[in-house]
Amino acid sequence: MMHPLPFQNIEAARERIAPFIRRTPLVPLPALRSDFHPNLRLKLENLQVSGSFKARGVFNHLLQLDEAQRKRGVIAASGGNHGLALAYAAWRLGIPATVYLPARASADREQRIAAWGARIFRYGDTWDDAHQRAIAHATDEGLYYVHPFDDIRTLEGQGTLGLEILADVPVVDLALIAVGGGGLIGGVAAALKQARPGIRIIGVEPTGAPTMTVSLNAGRLVELPAVHSIADTLSPRALSERTLDLALRYVNEVALVTDAQMVEAMRWLWTECNQLVEPAGAAVIAALQSGAVDVAHYAAPVAIICGGNVDAACVFAGYAAG
Amino acid sequence: MMHPLPFQNIEAARERIAPFIRRTPLVPLPALRSDFHPNLRLKLENLQVSGSFKARGVFNHLLQLDEAQRKRGVIAASGGNHGLALAYAAWRLGIPATVYLPARASADREQRIAAWGARIFRYGDTWDDAHQRAIAHATDEGLYYVHPFDDIRTLEGQGTLGLEILADVPVVDLALIAVGGGGLIGGVAAALKQARPGIRIIGVEPTGAPTMTVSLNAGRLVELPAVHSIADTLSPRALSERTLDLALRYVNEVALVTDAQMVEAMRWLWTECNQLVEPAGAAVIAALQSGAVDVAHYAAPVAIICGGNVDAACVFAGYAAG
Repeated sequence: MMHPLPFQNIEAARERIAPFIRRTPLVPLPALRSDFHPNLRLKLENLQVSGSFKARGVFNHLLQLDEAQRKRGVIAASGGNHGLALAYAAWRLGIPATVYLPARASADREQRIAAWGARIFRYGDTWDDAHQRAIAHATDEGLYYVHPFDDIRTLEGQGTLGLEILADVPVVDLALIAVGGGGLIGGVAAALKQARPGIRIIGVEPTGAPTMTVSLNAGRLVELPAVHSIADTLSPRALSERTLDLALRYVNEVALVTDAQMVEAMRWLWTECNQLVEPAGAAVIAALQSGAVDVAHYAAPVAIICGGNVDAACVFAGYAAG
Repeated sequence: MMHPLPFQNIEAARERIAPFIRRTPLVPLPALRSDFHPNLRLKLENLQVSGSFKARGVFNHLLQLDEAQRKRGVIAASGGNHGLALAYAAWRLGIPATVYLPARASADREQRIAAWGARIFRYGDTWDDAHQRAIAHATDEGLYYVHPFDDIRTLEGQGTLGLEILADVPVVDLALIAVGGGGLIGGVAAALKQARPGIRIIGVEPTGAPTMTVSLNAGRLVELPAVHSIADTLSPRALSERTLDLALRYVNEVALVTDAQMVEAMRWLWTECNQLVEPAGAAVIAALQSGAVDVAHYAAPVAIICGGNVDAACVFAGYAAG
């Protein structure tokens, strides 16, 4: 393996970030209706600080910087959640932060990031554009660049979510994980497979951004010419060599879901357990509801609700008016 | 005490309803900002089946009915959450259900109740009106009436939430609990005070429906001429003799919060941990934010987020349009 992710490094990351992140709960049983697997557990990572798993990887970076680097500051490019996690973690640790957002990132996410005091720039149409610009900016100002998936520290941090699943459901035999750049699934799958070699890992990505599907099918890194999905946080144009390597080793299959299926899954999560999440957070549920993934023959399946940062301003506006 | 609520009865209720309800989690630490008590825990009862604590009391009733009564059916009057819990529990157990709603109950709640197959009637302007009509209806058709707070079985069921807090935070020394008819606080306070006599119990009710405040001040049951609050589930016009008796014995103080403070607290819960809840669910947070309650000198305060059934249709509509 070109890019190893040792289990003990993930354990070390857990110790490092524990004071700063939340140990998120699993949705307790029972499900309301009997049409879902009775043992399916949902890992509510939308309850994580900053609203998504991204805080894990970001804190794992920031807590290892030396004093000089902390003073100069940190920078990232993000569809939203990674930038929000960086802004929050940097605020928490007293580090100056800069975030590049692509033009289509939501105003709600920008406001949340600004609320933690980060400097914000809009650049380009996609994450990949903003990413290139942010790297140049990092070089210019000597800022530490925190990559959202292509970095060992990011992956170790995301892997800590896998350790929590192992602790809460020791018999876990299936994990459903959304795929963007492959950082969450890479880290979590590395943790789970090293502890439970027989576990099945299924990725879920949008039909409009099938990044992992095309690269796994080709057996090499493929960059999509364009991506189109409401799940903006699942929509970089390519994995990295590092996350592809982890996927080739640890991911058993990848399922695809449409935008409409993700919205339907968002409604299900709201009706089932009053959890309002973003499309990416509901992707794993969409894979179950659409039949793209069948968990009937697993004893203890776990699906990760990876993030919850949807714009809910209209709900509060209704009360202000009423 | 005229209306005892023995601890062992609450324990028996817990055993009875356990297969049908969720053991809800506490929000894990840490809080995002340091302006809140570092040890404050939030009991996320919005994750309960049917979206509020009401399912506990309802299941404790329905599971004790004989076969003849189950066939005839059950009935309740409700501002929304109790009716939804009844509709869900009855569907789950195969019992016909009827729910009376006051005119101002939200269309969203009516739809949720209808989705579980209950028969719905609208009657009167307030819960009290619908309640009187539902009792007459119960007599006419021989239906079992499930009172939302003035019933020992309801109170035993709600008390099970207190047992979960004791198990998760054995050193709990303060509980913040929203007050409507006094069923939740009556049951939970009975559980907590019998196990931890030194614990402080603080109720929170809307300034527009200060039911418990006026009755405790008068030392007797007082019926308000009218109530006005966006927290419709906290807005009956009076406690009952039974819940007043429990309050006199177990509740140390009652704080008041305005509608605007509850909306601000809803925003805080969304920003802090991505939990979208109804105004009643945020009332305890409003009491902290407004300074009505100061928890600084407690070691392990717990606030109960009692329900989450807010109308979020506008969020999904945004995706359908976009």
